[in-house]
Amino acid sequence: MSASTLGTLFRVTNFGESHGPAIGCVIDGCPPGMELNEADIQQELDRRRPGTSRFVTQRREPDAVEILSGIYEGKTTGTPIALLIRNTDQRSKDYGEITRQFRPGHADYAYWHKYGIRDPRGGGRSSARLTAPTVAAGAVAKKWLTEKYGTVFRGFMTQLGSIDIPFQSIDYIGQNPFFAPVENTNELEEYMDALRRSGNSCGAVIRIIATGVPVGLGEPMYDKLDADIAHVMMGLNAVKGVEIGAGFASARQLGSEHGDSLTPQGFTSNNAGGIAGGISTGQNIDVRIAIKPTSSITTPRQSIDVDGQPVDVVTKGRHDPCVGIRAAPIAEALLALVVMDHALRHRAQNGDVQPHRFAPIAAKAY
Amino acid sequence: MSASTLGTLFRVTNFGESHGPAIGCVIDGCPPGMELNEADIQQELDRRRPGTSRFVTQRREPDAVEILSGIYEGKTTGTPIALLIRNTDQRSKDYGEITRQFRPGHADYAYWHKYGIRDPRGGGRSSARLTAPTVAAGAVAKKWLTEKYGTVFRGFMTQLGSIDIPFQSIDYIGQNPFFAPVENTNELEEYMDALRRSGNSCGAVIRIIATGVPVGLGEPMYDKLDADIAHVMMGLNAVKGVEIGAGFASARQLGSEHGDSLTPQGFTSNNAGGIAGGISTGQNIDVRIAIKPTSSITTPRQSIDVDGQPVDVVTKGRHDPCVGIRAAPIAEALLALVVMDHALRHRAQNGDVQPHRFAPIAAKAY
Amino acid sequence: MSASTLGTLFRVTNFGESHGPAIGCVIDGCPPGMELNEADIQQELDRRRPGTSRFVTQRREPDAVEILSGIYEGKTTGTPIALLIRNTDQRSKDYGEITRQFRPGHADYAYWHKYGIRDPRGGGRSSARLTAPTVAAGAVAKKWLTEKYGTVFRGFMTQLGSIDIPFQSIDYIGQNPFFAPVENTNELEEYMDALRRSGNSCGAVIRIIATGVPVGLGEPMYDKLDADIAHVMMGLNAVKGVEIGAGFASARQLGSEHGDSLTPQGFTSNNAGGIAGGISTGQNIDVRIAIKPTSSITTPRQSIDVDGQPVDVVTKGRHDPCVGIRAAPIAEALLALVVMDHALRHRAQNGDVQPHRFAPIAAKAY
Amino acid sequence: MSASTLGTLFRVTNFGESHGPAIGCVIDGCPPGMELNEADIQQELDRRRPGTSRFVTQRREPDAVEILSGIYEGKTTGTPIALLIRNTDQRSKDYGEITRQFRPGHADYAYWHKYGIRDPRGGGRSSARLTAPTVAAGAVAKKWLTEKYGTVFRGFMTQLGSIDIPFQSIDYIGQNPFFAPVENTNELEEYMDALRRSGNSCGAVIRIIATGVPVGLGEPMYDKLDADIAHVMMGLNAVKGVEIGAGFASARQLGSEHGDSLTPQGFTSNNAGGIAGGISTGQNIDVRIAIKPTSSITTPRQSIDVDGQPVDVVTKGRHDPCVGIRAAPIAEALLALVVMDHALRHRAQNGDVQPHRFAPIAAKAY
Repeated sequence: MSASTLGTLFRVTNFGESHGPAIGCVIDGCPPGMELNEADIQQELDRRRPGTSRFVTQRREPDAVEILSGIYEGKTTGTPIALLIRNTDQRSKDYGEITRQFRPGHADYAYWHKYGIRDPRGGGRSSARLTAPTVAAGAVAKKWLTEKYGTVFRGFMTQLGSIDIPFQSIDYIGQNPFFAPVENTNELEEYMDALRRSGNSCGAVIRIIATGVPVGLGEPMYDKLDADIAHVMMGLNAVKGVEIGAGFASARQLGSEHGDSLTPQGFTSNNAGGIAGGISTGQNIDVRIAIKPTSSITTPRQSIDVDGQPVDVVTKGRHDPCVGIRAAPIAEALLALVVMDHALRHRAQNGDVQPHRFAPIAAKAY
Repeated sequence: MSASTLGTLFRVTNFGESHGPAIGCVIDGCPPGMELNEADIQQELDRRRPGTSRFVTQRREPDAVEILSGIYEGKTTGTPIALLIRNTDQRSKDYGEITRQFRPGHADYAYWHKYGIRDPRGGGRSSARLTAPTVAAGAVAKKWLTEKYGTVFRGFMTQLGSIDIPFQSIDYIGQNPFFAPVENTNELEEYMDALRRSGNSCGAVIRIIATGVPVGLGEPMYDKLDADIAHVMMGLNAVKGVEIGAGFASARQLGSEHGDSLTPQGFTSNNAGGIAGGISTGQNIDVRIAIKPTSSITTPRQSIDVDGQPVDVVTKGRHDPCVGIRAAPIAEALLALVVMDHALRHRAQNGDVQPHRFAPIAAKAY
Repeated sequence: MSASTLGTLFRVTNFGESHGPAIGCVIDGCPPGMELNEADIQQELDRRRPGTSRFVTQRREPDAVEILSGIYEGKTTGTPIALLIRNTDQRSKDYGEITRQFRPGHADYAYWHKYGIRDPRGGGRSSARLTAPTVAAGAVAKKWLTEKYGTVFRGFMTQLGSIDIPFQSIDYIGQNPFFAPVENTNELEEYMDALRRSGNSCGAVIRIIATGVPVGLGEPMYDKLDADIAHVMMGLNAVKGVEIGAGFASARQLGSEHGDSLTPQGFTSNNAGGIAGGISTGQNIDVRIAIKPTSSITTPRQSIDVDGQPVDVVTKGRHDPCVGIRAAPIAEALLALVVMDHALRHRAQNGDVQPHRFAPIAAKAY
Repeated sequence: MSASTLGTLFRVTNFGESHGPAIGCVIDGCPPGMELNEADIQQELDRRRPGTSRFVTQRREPDAVEILSGIYEGKTTGTPIALLIRNTDQRSKDYGEITRQFRPGHADYAYWHKYGIRDPRGGGRSSARLTAPTVAAGAVAKKWLTEKYGTVFRGFMTQLGSIDIPFQSIDYIGQNPFFAPVENTNELEEYMDALRRSGNSCGAVIRIIATGVPVGLGEPMYDKLDADIAHVMMGLNAVKGVEIGAGFASARQLGSEHGDSLTPQGFTSNNAGGIAGGISTGQNIDVRIAIKPTSSITTPRQSIDVDGQPVDVVTKGRHDPCVGIRAAPIAEALLALVVMDHALRHRAQNGDVQPHRFAPIAAKAY
């Protein structure tokens, strides 16, 4: 884990800026011999892609991925897999006027002070556009984990602004632009339409579940599985909170309520969220993340410029009114990358991952 | 960040088990020339030490630290600082009976499956006792950051089980065994006494504030400052949730509420918790962590043994009825270690950390 | 340092295969604010480029580099610099016949056993073509070090096969295709012409000198400067030996001969090769590497195929008859990358690199 | 690989100074379930121990190792193994007079400039005494590799000063204080006695052979097996050159001579030294290192002090007249640590190491 590289054995090095020539990543450490082609990756990119509904940014990017290396005759060779996505819809003029201003809630002020220089075009390096390569890399991890262990990752929205979203069925997730597990999203659509009209933005909560995770993944004492999950999730743009299992509610539980009992048929609950002592238990990994409202809004706000002078900032251009809407596939990818890295780390020290030594463990799917 | 080593430039390698001969750590990367002696470290260890009140484990450990290396004539030399703490109050017999059982809520099941072998004495490697070396290392980081930048770290309890604790004054924190920022802790004491009589345990929420953090720390895109904070906090024993700034509440905020405005006199609010785009802004870093109830309780619970047979588990021995009570100094240390590491990383790429380019930024202290 | 990534703070992640769509690298950790454009990099790539004389491979590759990220308005921004070089002269048919054979002296056998799959086109990942991205990254490191400290890197040939090459002047290096520090290269040309006619190949020795290296770079005890130099040099294709300073000759020296004396005017000799205790002394860093003869020759040799059956192997295609001829700019780049990484590591722990505390140290330039 | 930590998956963190309270290391990543006790480690430490013959330093250190963690009921648990060696024969007074002087050939000048502070007692951190923890860690790696793959590491002296030592038999190595593979060491003894009388020191060449190394270890493109071997060897105190296989002689070979042919019965030669393309071939790994003469001699030499004033330096105290004499077990340990790390890295990406797919490969043992 170092700046633009994620992972220790399944390593993803990310590059690019929102309005530069291209974005992409290099995946190093992928096991050899897995069938992989661009369509495998493209299908995940398409889930995250902008411009697919009126509730997300209207920037038109095909996000077409090109595999530059690491594949021979349709299979991974164990060498680095470089993925390239050209930026095609840069509109640098949209951003010109705010080059000298620090937009409230954005990274402008911090980048300026850190580096003494800042690419202002579309947020430059701090843009959420840079999650596309992460999603692409996650697609590779997902494929390997699914083929090897049957692991499946599903992210969905459980809260949009002030609206709590009930869980109806996992099957609805792919059927609406919100990744919401409900059949009818009228309320969500109306909420978003009103928000957009008012020139404002809102936050969201996303939940991510991984099923079929092998028992034994995680490296105490500083690289626990939950620690690394929290790392990638809090590192995702706009995330301000991470919970695993019972999360903040566990602070109000008694010990007799919280501890998940074990029977020969499996665990009887999952307050642990699938991780105990920093190591996977074989239960579902269960994560929730809080996403702040988009910082780019058309409501004027108070700020300063690079000379320290007060200015009024209005953010024009094309933006997601709720960055949480497209966050589900990104969060899935991040969780997959962590599990993948730990699967490799586990077998380095312990040999190939062991199957469960007891009967498969019963757990509510979601 | 790799298994038992924390950090990339200020690196802490932790070793030991709860009932082995010793615990300790090696700190690599400390800048040379800082005055450092055992008392500097001991005072932080004493804040975390067990046996100091009736609300924590009665294990009697002096936690006396010995500096084995890295100091010459009272100053750091830039070479590894090895710290040794002998275990003196092991009572292995307390734990013998549960060697073959998996205690609910504990790491037993996960360790057994991961390694195929498990040190059952006092939780072995998964014991919270192993946070002592972290606190010792944190003392070194704190000293350097305070001397260099005036950075100060304060952790305190904001919730004990179901009791919300108001913030009265930072000065009260050192005056009660709960690290609670209130003058009168009668309610907390009565709650804990009742809990202990009932053989149960409870959770807690701890908040940690860092003041005087330089602007510009954090390494996008995968080693953001908030990502690394979430990493260490979620990796702390019993933590199930982490929030920065507005945290989960930000999901219900509108963009017009959340974004912290800037004036020539500084930020007008701190929903960001001192971090924007993964980089420190110079405001207070503001973190909250949720701690689950202690898994070791005397209430019998259902589990299985290593043969998969059902058993009733009662955890005897000496335990903290709320591990959150001693968590404040540990969480401070973890935050200090992250800030320290990023201070060094920042100056590697950017040269010595710059002072604020604008007037000092006003912010409520807590 | 991990598989396809070199360095800890100035990190270069390399990707590509000899006959895939492209090769390239991502540089992470470059300090912000340095002017950088494609010409700065291209000039170094052109020094290494194939097809520039009759003594090197006739593959025609322009090796045109495209900067994909990390630059804004002509300056580095501190974010990853991705460099792309398209392969334009792949002739996969040249290599088809040896897909199932293990060529003596090549990596075929090892790759096959390691990964269970192998890209045979032009050596795939093991091709020396993959040194081009290293040279490109080295150009960035060189530029920063030259501007900051005046450090200069010069590599030249001191032995071609059995011919020892005297040192006449550093100025001749750029005036002949051998990077030889001599005015007249007739003997070298005749040697190579005869070699090519006989279908054979030869080895070489390259010496690399860095002048103007700041004192104090290197991280004992396992990341000493000389250790990291040996790492990159031995990792270069075809290198079988590395010497620093007096090298193997030091084994025959007495202590009274070897130790470099110090005077107020500087060191009186440089047996240390500019590094003592793993840390730079401010003298010239002086390295020599031994390069084995090219493994691709047209002389038939005995080997086996993937079924273990005996075969006669004749390597056709286009090859360098002495890979050492183009090694000088590559070795310069590798040395620059190591020095760059250590310059950043040094200032992380010690603040900005100090100037010499004594009068500049006299040393023979070469 | 980072400063005081060696390895990426089998990680050794070293601490201590020559005349501080203790030296030692923490081994992180050892596979669980291996039987290990202090005697396993002590036997290797005893091979390196000072004071065992009149040809090495007369410092009397038992180098008794204590295992502080990572073992339960005689077996490794997969958690960090901390090893402690107390220094018992410090004589700080021996070194007092040279505190302000820079001894020629030593690290004094470099340490002083790097850190601005220096522990002068016995060389402090730069002392070869710090190789003891490396040897201890190597003992653990050796044990695992021998039990798992039958890998064996043997180091021996092939040159002492100007004397070339023939190879008679590997069995003689343990029978003389020089680790020389010859029956009669009279010439070596006389050479050393004369050297000591003259107050001088000499260099040496050590060769290290590993047999039974699995095929497929090594991680191109920057963490090749030979690169990592060169890294640890050049990082060993006093080493100025490293060769693998034919080494520098390969520069004078023709391609038709150098490339090792393959037959169904195995390779017919080993110019590669067991490594091709940076990956082990299953042949013996064959390494040679050049060790410079000890810098501590009683012959007066010219130097300067911390004020830049000229001084005459005479090094008193107890020293090895040839540090190469005790280098063989250290170099074995370093090679074992590299092979161990790569064995774990290999199985992370590729699953458990495969046996040879062809008949065992014949090779001369030495």
